[in-house]
Amino acid sequence: MVVSLERLRAVRAIEPLQWRMHVEAGLPTAEVQRLARENGLYFPPDPGASEQSQIGGNLATNAGGPHAFKYGVTGRWVTGLEVVVPPGNVIQIGGPVRKDVAGFDLRDLMIGSEGALGIITAAWLRLVPLPESRLPVIATYPSASSGCEAIACVMGSGLEPSVLEYVDAEAVTAAGASLPATLEPGFMVIVEADGPNGCAAALRRELMEALDVGASSLAAPTEPDEIAALWRWRDGVSFAVTGRLGHKLSEDVSVPVDRLPDIIEATVVIGERHGVPACSWGHAGDGNVHSSFLFAPDDALARGRAEAAAAELIAAAVGLGGTVSGEHGIGLTKLRHLHAHGDPGVLDLQRQIKGLFDPKGLLNPGKAV
Amino acid sequence: MVVSLERLRAVRAIEPLQWRMHVEAGLPTAEVQRLARENGLYFPPDPGASEQSQIGGNLATNAGGPHAFKYGVTGRWVTGLEVVVPPGNVIQIGGPVRKDVAGFDLRDLMIGSEGALGIITAAWLRLVPLPESRLPVIATYPSASSGCEAIACVMGSGLEPSVLEYVDAEAVTAAGASLPATLEPGFMVIVEADGPNGCAAALRRELMEALDVGASSLAAPTEPDEIAALWRWRDGVSFAVTGRLGHKLSEDVSVPVDRLPDIIEATVVIGERHGVPACSWGHAGDGNVHSSFLFAPDDALARGRAEAAAAELIAAAVGLGGTVSGEHGIGLTKLRHLHAHGDPGVLDLQRQIKGLFDPKGLLNPGKAV
Repeated sequence: MVVSLERLRAVRAIEPLQWRMHVEAGLPTAEVQRLARENGLYFPPDPGASEQSQIGGNLATNAGGPHAFKYGVTGRWVTGLEVVVPPGNVIQIGGPVRKDVAGFDLRDLMIGSEGALGIITAAWLRLVPLPESRLPVIATYPSASSGCEAIACVMGSGLEPSVLEYVDAEAVTAAGASLPATLEPGFMVIVEADGPNGCAAALRRELMEALDVGASSLAAPTEPDEIAALWRWRDGVSFAVTGRLGHKLSEDVSVPVDRLPDIIEATVVIGERHGVPACSWGHAGDGNVHSSFLFAPDDALARGRAEAAAAELIAAAVGLGGTVSGEHGIGLTKLRHLHAHGDPGVLDLQRQIKGLFDPKGLLNPGKAV
Repeated sequence: MVVSLERLRAVRAIEPLQWRMHVEAGLPTAEVQRLARENGLYFPPDPGASEQSQIGGNLATNAGGPHAFKYGVTGRWVTGLEVVVPPGNVIQIGGPVRKDVAGFDLRDLMIGSEGALGIITAAWLRLVPLPESRLPVIATYPSASSGCEAIACVMGSGLEPSVLEYVDAEAVTAAGASLPATLEPGFMVIVEADGPNGCAAALRRELMEALDVGASSLAAPTEPDEIAALWRWRDGVSFAVTGRLGHKLSEDVSVPVDRLPDIIEATVVIGERHGVPACSWGHAGDGNVHSSFLFAPDDALARGRAEAAAAELIAAAVGLGGTVSGEHGIGLTKLRHLHAHGDPGVLDLQRQIKGLFDPKGLLNPGKAV
């Protein structure tokens, strides 16, 4: 059974002077972002496909996105939830209050639980004043290692960009045709400076200096059209990579940020070993990598090789001190990886929590834990 | 039995280039802050008494403080925990990875659980680059209502101060002797502008304009000594208020920020009705108020009146859509208030979670839930 919350899309309240919004779970994420912006405010979480995704889905997976580097993931922007828990009770956890430590934190337990503990029907969201400027800087590098050095250089510089992304050379090539800025091909790093106009401009200049070391090319668009085109391009990377052979297996591992070069290299090496084209991109500053293994939809053998490569990549991420999922969740397909790599004691507690909230196993059976 | 983690105070790792630190639970919070600062980084949570409190205690209560307004509470700065759970297993939840959605969020469940689900023995902390400047602006107002209007004006201005505090006129008077700046007595609002030097200075000027409307007096110290003296004074408000009669009952309620004027006024009205001197101060921008009812330690009748006033104040906060504890936790003394005001369905889930982690009730018996 599929539960759709598509019609639960009311904005119950928007209170700009209190920096908050109360919305139903079916409201598209892009609509949340638009409403905030129209009121001079900002809802920072920006997972891909915001026009299609609903805020309830973002909550159920605790979605991230590029701006999670500075602003944190979706759960950080939630002060309260309305949730239906089995056998059908509606409970309210928190509300419009910004701080609450009364009792154990069921709110964050529910966020990211993939609908396996309850169904989130509404949320109180926290907002912040909209930054006046958001200015990207993009650079390309001759190799993954020189690109990763630039990323380390940004983190060591004392600067705080609002995003710190990368797209490896293979993925840049796949998506290159529509790339808005004039850049040499190569390993790409994207950062953004946000804040009041003068501050964002100053930070942008410093980020340009930090990224310039070892770069093949650098662009720093300032026109709104150019900036929008850049982010449309970045949003389209996943589709462009899929387009190369028609299908891909894309894993969403996360590693400690100092192990970023290792997991980027491991993606390529593992792909080669299994004979499938491989590339990666993602949220460099969070060590959150989308490693993809490409194959043609009708090539069952290649699919099998891609699956073997993906399993090996996940094991590599865990071996580097990372996790099987940084922002996409477990669902059905990653369950075996969670079981293979999770701490048995922790997994056991997770299963008991599932049994406590949903003793009959009605919610998302066979998923998440 | 009291468990002391005082000797678990090792810094297991500090990795400034990766903006992170791995510390044991007994490390004093001030030491965490100092270590970050010495490495050009910033650990924003700043609950009172940071020299005495340990980071493990801050985690167990999910402590806040003035800078929680911009930077969030302690839990937001944690990527991983090492926890001892009954009957004595050591589990690791998360680690140095900045993003992780594999399985339900046990990390935030453990944070703020007051030691009732497990004993946190170590944590991986996230840091950010240290703001170059942190510049306060202080203003006093002839009444609580004009002060609250200034607070609303700041939130409606599109500016984002890093703190947004208030101290009511009674509390200012109690602590007044040591007040560093030359200010008229009255209801006080404190904000802070942080960031790179030029940006913080510009934000400070805008905050001065916003706070000036209706103010009796305004000060904006820039000398490090003056700024340090201001924060020492602010830290001492609670002690100074206690000093007036020798003892106080101080409640830590939190309300939606638009109800701040109501709870500040309710504190005074409820105190008057019960015949006990009352005042409040706290984290205005988070709607988190420390309402205090004063009495002499040997005056049992006055203590009884203060207790009745406190219970009424908590009910008033809940009636305004608030919570019985914003940052101090439930412990032993607030348990009856939690039971009186919590959603029975939610409380029941909390108790079941307690039973699941600690079936024999060994940890902090009779507390938290």
